Amino acid sequence: MRAVVMERPGEVRVVDREQPRIEEPTDAVIEVTATCICGSDLWPYRGIEAVDHAWMGHEYVGVVREVGPQVRDVRVGQFVVGSFFASDGTCEICRSGYQSHCVQRVPMGSIGTQAQYARIPLADGTLVATPGMPDADLVPSLLAASDVLGTGWFAAVAAEAGPGKTVAVVGDGAVGLLGVLAARQLGAERVIAMSRHADRQALARELGATEIVEERGDAGVAHIKDLTDGLGAHSVVEAVGTQESMMQAIGSTRPGGHVGYVGVSHGVSLPGQELFFSGVHLHGGPAPVRRFLPDLIRRIWDRTIDPGRVFDLTLSLEQAAEGYRAMDERRATKVLLTV
Amino acid sequence: MRAVVMERPGEVRVVDREQPRIEEPTDAVIEVTATCICGSDLWPYRGIEAVDHAWMGHEYVGVVREVGPQVRDVRVGQFVVGSFFASDGTCEICRSGYQSHCVQRVPMGSIGTQAQYARIPLADGTLVATPGMPDADLVPSLLAASDVLGTGWFAAVAAEAGPGKTVAVVGDGAVGLLGVLAARQLGAERVIAMSRHADRQALARELGATEIVEERGDAGVAHIKDLTDGLGAHSVVEAVGTQESMMQAIGSTRPGGHVGYVGVSHGVSLPGQELFFSGVHLHGGPAPVRRFLPDLIRRIWDRTIDPGRVFDLTLSLEQAAEGYRAMDERRATKVLLTV
Repeated sequence: MRAVVMERPGEVRVVDREQPRIEEPTDAVIEVTATCICGSDLWPYRGIEAVDHAWMGHEYVGVVREVGPQVRDVRVGQFVVGSFFASDGTCEICRSGYQSHCVQRVPMGSIGTQAQYARIPLADGTLVATPGMPDADLVPSLLAASDVLGTGWFAAVAAEAGPGKTVAVVGDGAVGLLGVLAARQLGAERVIAMSRHADRQALARELGATEIVEERGDAGVAHIKDLTDGLGAHSVVEAVGTQESMMQAIGSTRPGGHVGYVGVSHGVSLPGQELFFSGVHLHGGPAPVRRFLPDLIRRIWDRTIDPGRVFDLTLSLEQAAEGYRAMDERRATKVLLTV
Repeated sequence: MRAVVMERPGEVRVVDREQPRIEEPTDAVIEVTATCICGSDLWPYRGIEAVDHAWMGHEYVGVVREVGPQVRDVRVGQFVVGSFFASDGTCEICRSGYQSHCVQRVPMGSIGTQAQYARIPLADGTLVATPGMPDADLVPSLLAASDVLGTGWFAAVAAEAGPGKTVAVVGDGAVGLLGVLAARQLGAERVIAMSRHADRQALARELGATEIVEERGDAGVAHIKDLTDGLGAHSVVEAVGTQESMMQAIGSTRPGGHVGYVGVSHGVSLPGQELFFSGVHLHGGPAPVRRFLPDLIRRIWDRTIDPGRVFDLTLSLEQAAEGYRAMDERRATKVLLTV
């Protein structure tokens, strides 16, 4: 089969790779329908983070082609969506809704889903089948559920977005934009997207943003306070992962409010005293996407939400290198690869 | 009147000071019945923090002697308990339960309650009257509600201690010990006190600890994991405020669990990546003690709880200097000053 490999920063190729097979009795093998490139794939691409897995990709939707002898629920022929962590679904951590911290979790990035086929460990705990074979136009949204939607949704839940709340969203990448969508779906009254790019501002408004703040850092915090009687937002979604974005998120939150942070942390060090006196709640980390998948698939299937709109470039798997370049050069927010 | 003053680190004296009077129409003046020395008073005493207010003390119970013309609920002659922040009780932040971040808040430490009388700003929002004049043996517990109990209680609430939960408590000072009491009162199944002092371990057990862990740092974390199927506690109360105690608290918490931190942060810098991948909830800061006062006073009045037990040295106001020394030299956990 064909698969995407990155052996050194900036060097992405599509090569032949042995087709995956059932290794554990709880595995499934899926034929990938679509996969995508994640903002987090850019860290090794840019050499900021070690290239610790040559095979790339952790987002996927596809059709089950084979299951191991202990797989009970997932069946051959089903169209499935899974998260970027495989999880058993049975441990105490999974049952509490934190499948991304499952005691048996397997990061799908260590397996690589930018490929024609992928082995999915712990298939019953990991995969959620759609009600049937999806129409082609639903595939991007189902793929988004695998990571960016699930992550933005978790951030909004962690930030306790809900009715009567004012939610600010730091970061206008795919996750931030879908954090906007999630906040509105969860009933937030006002959603303030923090963005300085006209195209992303426009998309944020279409996804549910009621206001836009262009400033960043202290000026951004001041503007959020201006819009909230000097108090700060009730809920803030952080979807970047830098020192500036974290401090912007904490500073934009009122005392007793909630920050949901999902930007993978890079070089962040939170000053204890400032955090202490802020009085905010802080929750985040790798999103337990699996918790939300049944609900998200239903909303997509019913065409209530259309998160696939964050994909602004669609290429074939063979064009993966161009996809990485487009995201690296910020010509694309999120690249979908058809397989 | 007589009042405690600290003009330089380590120099505490009791001196004559002009008796306070009504300055704002929302003020009350109370005759202080008892006050105490806080662990946070030791930071300036030890020269670790600037001596930014000469008049000392922020914990108090007493009898109302005078009220301003706009005070509606508090009446002369009532025995009252208040928090270490005066708060209006009417702003949006107060109404959401975060009175320690009230938009009009006044830190009582800037006024000084280690004195015979104290002016209490925003009396209606700040003070809670007891059902009557308390028996003498209830005074220490009512005084504890003013800060250490209220703070330990908030930490346990922030850590979401409750039925079925395993709660670990980092710190065996007065706040940590009352965090143990709070966790049990809130219904926690197991409460693990982290302490290496035999006398504090014994008191922790009397207040509701079911287990003791003596190790600190990584060894402490490992021991907590051993006691919790390798997962970590559901809830962790942090009541110290140092880098080591914060990392011990975060490390002792399972993914999706809750850290309630109330130790005033000193020199703490939280590594973003470690926090991110921990998947914990973090909430804390200056405790909104006022939120809990009615409930705490009722539990004390009914003799359901006896938080006054954390006072292990009682002196007169005139002996304040000896009280500071005893706490500084760790001869006392918490010193009560009778006035």
